[in-house]
Amino acid sequence: MKVLLLAAGRSKRMKPVEDKNFLKFLGKPLIVWQLEMLKEVGLLDVVVVGGDHNLERLKDATDHLEMNIEYVEQENLDEGMCGAVLAAKEYILEQSVLVFSSNDVVEASAFETLKRAFEPGDMDSYILGKKVESYFPGGYLETNEDGVISRIVEKPGEGNEPSDLVNLVVHLHKHTGDLIEALENVESDNDDKYEVALSNMIAGGSKMKAVAYEGFWQPIKFPWHIQKVARFLINESEKFIASSAQIAATAVIHGKVIIDEDVKIMDGAIVSGPCYLGKGSVVANNALVRDSNVGERCVVGFGTEVARSYLGDDVWTHSNYIGDSVIGNNVSFGAGCVTGNLRLDEGEVMVDFDGKKLSSQSNKFGLITGSNIRVGVNTSFMPGVKIGDDCFIGAGIVVAENVPDKSFVRAKVELKISENNQSAPRRDNFK
Amino acid sequence: MKVLLLAAGRSKRMKPVEDKNFLKFLGKPLIVWQLEMLKEVGLLDVVVVGGDHNLERLKDATDHLEMNIEYVEQENLDEGMCGAVLAAKEYILEQSVLVFSSNDVVEASAFETLKRAFEPGDMDSYILGKKVESYFPGGYLETNEDGVISRIVEKPGEGNEPSDLVNLVVHLHKHTGDLIEALENVESDNDDKYEVALSNMIAGGSKMKAVAYEGFWQPIKFPWHIQKVARFLINESEKFIASSAQIAATAVIHGKVIIDEDVKIMDGAIVSGPCYLGKGSVVANNALVRDSNVGERCVVGFGTEVARSYLGDDVWTHSNYIGDSVIGNNVSFGAGCVTGNLRLDEGEVMVDFDGKKLSSQSNKFGLITGSNIRVGVNTSFMPGVKIGDDCFIGAGIVVAENVPDKSFVRAKVELKISENNQSAPRRDNFK
Amino acid sequence: MKVLLLAAGRSKRMKPVEDKNFLKFLGKPLIVWQLEMLKEVGLLDVVVVGGDHNLERLKDATDHLEMNIEYVEQENLDEGMCGAVLAAKEYILEQSVLVFSSNDVVEASAFETLKRAFEPGDMDSYILGKKVESYFPGGYLETNEDGVISRIVEKPGEGNEPSDLVNLVVHLHKHTGDLIEALENVESDNDDKYEVALSNMIAGGSKMKAVAYEGFWQPIKFPWHIQKVARFLINESEKFIASSAQIAATAVIHGKVIIDEDVKIMDGAIVSGPCYLGKGSVVANNALVRDSNVGERCVVGFGTEVARSYLGDDVWTHSNYIGDSVIGNNVSFGAGCVTGNLRLDEGEVMVDFDGKKLSSQSNKFGLITGSNIRVGVNTSFMPGVKIGDDCFIGAGIVVAENVPDKSFVRAKVELKISENNQSAPRRDNFK
Repeated sequence: MKVLLLAAGRSKRMKPVEDKNFLKFLGKPLIVWQLEMLKEVGLLDVVVVGGDHNLERLKDATDHLEMNIEYVEQENLDEGMCGAVLAAKEYILEQSVLVFSSNDVVEASAFETLKRAFEPGDMDSYILGKKVESYFPGGYLETNEDGVISRIVEKPGEGNEPSDLVNLVVHLHKHTGDLIEALENVESDNDDKYEVALSNMIAGGSKMKAVAYEGFWQPIKFPWHIQKVARFLINESEKFIASSAQIAATAVIHGKVIIDEDVKIMDGAIVSGPCYLGKGSVVANNALVRDSNVGERCVVGFGTEVARSYLGDDVWTHSNYIGDSVIGNNVSFGAGCVTGNLRLDEGEVMVDFDGKKLSSQSNKFGLITGSNIRVGVNTSFMPGVKIGDDCFIGAGIVVAENVPDKSFVRAKVELKISENNQSAPRRDNFK
Repeated sequence: MKVLLLAAGRSKRMKPVEDKNFLKFLGKPLIVWQLEMLKEVGLLDVVVVGGDHNLERLKDATDHLEMNIEYVEQENLDEGMCGAVLAAKEYILEQSVLVFSSNDVVEASAFETLKRAFEPGDMDSYILGKKVESYFPGGYLETNEDGVISRIVEKPGEGNEPSDLVNLVVHLHKHTGDLIEALENVESDNDDKYEVALSNMIAGGSKMKAVAYEGFWQPIKFPWHIQKVARFLINESEKFIASSAQIAATAVIHGKVIIDEDVKIMDGAIVSGPCYLGKGSVVANNALVRDSNVGERCVVGFGTEVARSYLGDDVWTHSNYIGDSVIGNNVSFGAGCVTGNLRLDEGEVMVDFDGKKLSSQSNKFGLITGSNIRVGVNTSFMPGVKIGDDCFIGAGIVVAENVPDKSFVRAKVELKISENNQSAPRRDNFK
Repeated sequence: MKVLLLAAGRSKRMKPVEDKNFLKFLGKPLIVWQLEMLKEVGLLDVVVVGGDHNLERLKDATDHLEMNIEYVEQENLDEGMCGAVLAAKEYILEQSVLVFSSNDVVEASAFETLKRAFEPGDMDSYILGKKVESYFPGGYLETNEDGVISRIVEKPGEGNEPSDLVNLVVHLHKHTGDLIEALENVESDNDDKYEVALSNMIAGGSKMKAVAYEGFWQPIKFPWHIQKVARFLINESEKFIASSAQIAATAVIHGKVIIDEDVKIMDGAIVSGPCYLGKGSVVANNALVRDSNVGERCVVGFGTEVARSYLGDDVWTHSNYIGDSVIGNNVSFGAGCVTGNLRLDEGEVMVDFDGKKLSSQSNKFGLITGSNIRVGVNTSFMPGVKIGDDCFIGAGIVVAENVPDKSFVRAKVELKISENNQSAPRRDNFK
């Protein structure tokens, strides 16, 4: 059996955050987490499908793993999952294939459950169905009493769900040839060809089993998904404090923390898990980090709070509040900068995607940034704002709109300088 | 003897702070403090005079007390104290009456002193005279050598005081009928009818004794009086830390504190008495509360200082400085907000009352707010500013004027976004 | 032998910082440090040359020292060092003279080295040459193999240095009469007459020896030199904590600190040496002072960081970041004020001197202020800005330009107050 790991997506909705495959959690890129999990459950033969934009990088990031990984380029990314499977056709044709998207973060048990269901071998395909307790806008698996899928119903609307199982892209196809044939013959103008092909297969007599899964599942499609994944991965990991870490006597550490090599936690600092602190990072005096993933060589400066946030590498803060935010690499905030993370009306924070506002699904969400950014002192960011790569943002500004890549943002307020006819009282006269 | 407790005043000069009777000190409304003090000195029969605006609420707040309280409505509030006494006429006519204003915070000893003076019973009235050491703009008691009052001199001006005793509205009248008659016959267009009636009674032969009082006295007429009362009541109370309070090992607590049920004081936080922390409130990491009354379910967030301030219930702060301020209920400050509490010239802070500026009598005074307010991040308030109920204040603003109820305050500063031709240095090149 | 201590310079490039002679390091004016060092090495006979602007003050500051000090006024300050020596002519004519500028901070060993070189007595003059490892834009001593100076080469340019010895104004002239004569006869329109006279003396056969010096040397010509001197003097001093200092149990003190009488260091505060804290100063809760010289009666308020900075007397801070800055006397910063100390492009910080921008030689440099200044809350200063004496700076401003003496700086941003149709959620509905 081969795993077909789909990693070619361009992460458009994640911009300015970088390609999710390379987002580092606990210092390790997501693509490595995914492959290591496959390895853990004994799935060592993997075909990774990437695009022109990331295939080399996927290879560089993963070829040190002791697995049998083949790398395939999907040329036309508009063809989605269908195109991805067909691009890998020659690598998978001869055996069963497990299709899995690098977008989806699940537990190893997802694969174990699927493998167990596969053992009797009486079905043509096995589709992982995430058991949900409330409505989720995805594809629902309609099944008969034996768990055999009769239909996949896309976004049925709340109350119309045919089951409590949502189609999760962890699909095991026993007869890859049948899948390929169905994909090659599907007719659809949309990017749902893969799903239509599955439906056609079912209609043509393929027996597909819904395999119920009750574990963790978090797709990473929007920036606000990132910290949820970080929190999960930290909580799943063992507590660890590197022996090279320097922790001051008056620093306080609570809960599940993973503190990497050469981290320095200074007097009066507080680290409250779940937290990851990357190699060489500093939590300075009287700073607080809680429920966050902090990359390498970061400085959480004096008096700063970082809460429920994801920080890339080389992020420098200083007397800041970074809350519910996603910060890229090589970003520096001047003292007094604040990421607003709650609207005045406390409604759900909206994020603008090229003019279309989408809800972050939470009333607490802060700033999203790309990389290589410098921010002046005392600047404020409104909830849900996005700052592109390579930007300079001046001091004392309120940024309430998205800022494109390579921007310099200023807010010239003219000063009025007049003669001062008053004098500052001498201190000894002051009570 | 009955106590006539005057509580009908509309607290105009306290706006946007709520009716002073219901201001909670140490979690208990002022009106309850006043009644419990009367109970403590054995004065159990009380007539509370309220107005249409607050009588029901006065009843709700106090009828659980095990005292004999009657509630009377004063219909025409313009008639002041005179109207209040006459409104209660039928409840007090048959006995002696002790007239006391809920405005005035005094010690129980004020009543004990008066009762002791009353025991010989040789006078018609007993007027509490607060012994002052410097000039106070009130009514002074002119007395003969036996302490019998010959005249009440309103605001004589410094140097012209006829005595060191200021008329404090804790008045015991033995013959209530005589007082009623004098009030019914007084002729004055001003709201000083009660005082004129007293003068007429003296002129007509009533013997009124000035009873000297050296204890605490603080009227609550202006917002800047509130914290003085809070400080007094905290200092008078026993130190108390509820067993349900959670106090982190590295938190520091100094001095007289009253820490109510379910309070949480986190690592690195400092509480420096005199302080009251209301039920369920949180003092977060590295925050400081000193010399303040904090209501219920408040959050004194990370890195915040609350100094010499009164916070109502449900006040949320976060990396703020709240100094010498009076904050209502359900108020939230974004990170980085600051209440200025000292003028640049360090002169007395002035407060604008409908266009008329009055001195707060101090060079340190901050913000006054009503309730149901949200403030964006990094916003500043100038000393002595008042914010009405139900306001939203945007981020990064300097508020230098009073803001009426139900206002949305913004300060749109246009941003200039141009192309950034520079690039942020890579961190590894940075020394 | 007499020392001629040149202290008449007007410190133009130091403005708005005060006359460097009176800048206090560890509570002691620089001129006293210089004289005490001379005393330490046995040089008790000193002629101090001042100007009309500072001679009285020089006398007041130093006449308590048990040395033989004579005070001489240099009338025409435009005549520089040459004028200074000639002004003191009658005081020094009869003996050897050691010319030393109060501008230059060196170690006592500089004088000891020079004295040792002088003992054989075979030369006419002894010139201290600071051994440098990289190019310094000063005068280089060209010598023959015996260390006898053949020429002084002004700013030769990197790579053209005739030696590794830079002329440092610690000059011992055995025959003062010869020096005076040379100075009286020199012809030059520039203010380099003293240097030209030395060259003329060499040309005329005077034997001057270059005495190599490898110790500390820091001229104080620009504001960014000040903290370097402070750091040196603190590091040279013994660690000391006055017995009258009050240090809270949870305060943390690291490294070389000198904590003067009546200093108060409160809970959660951190002082990280090298640091000097002047008499009666307070480091309040959760504040941080590191690598700084803090004058008398300063308040480093709650949550403030003072880093690599020089603070005069009576400086009040409160939730501020003061980094790489030089602050005068009687200066107060409102809560939330920040001194930016790093450009967005992280280039060297430039300082404007009457329209001419000079580099601070560092990418970290902050604010320079004079004295008697008040700053409103949440105001930001851009790196390298200078604020003159007697200024008021309003709240919420970004100051990006120099501010002259006696200025009132405002930035009126109009507020838009409209009706608020939304209401703040009740807290009990808030998750």
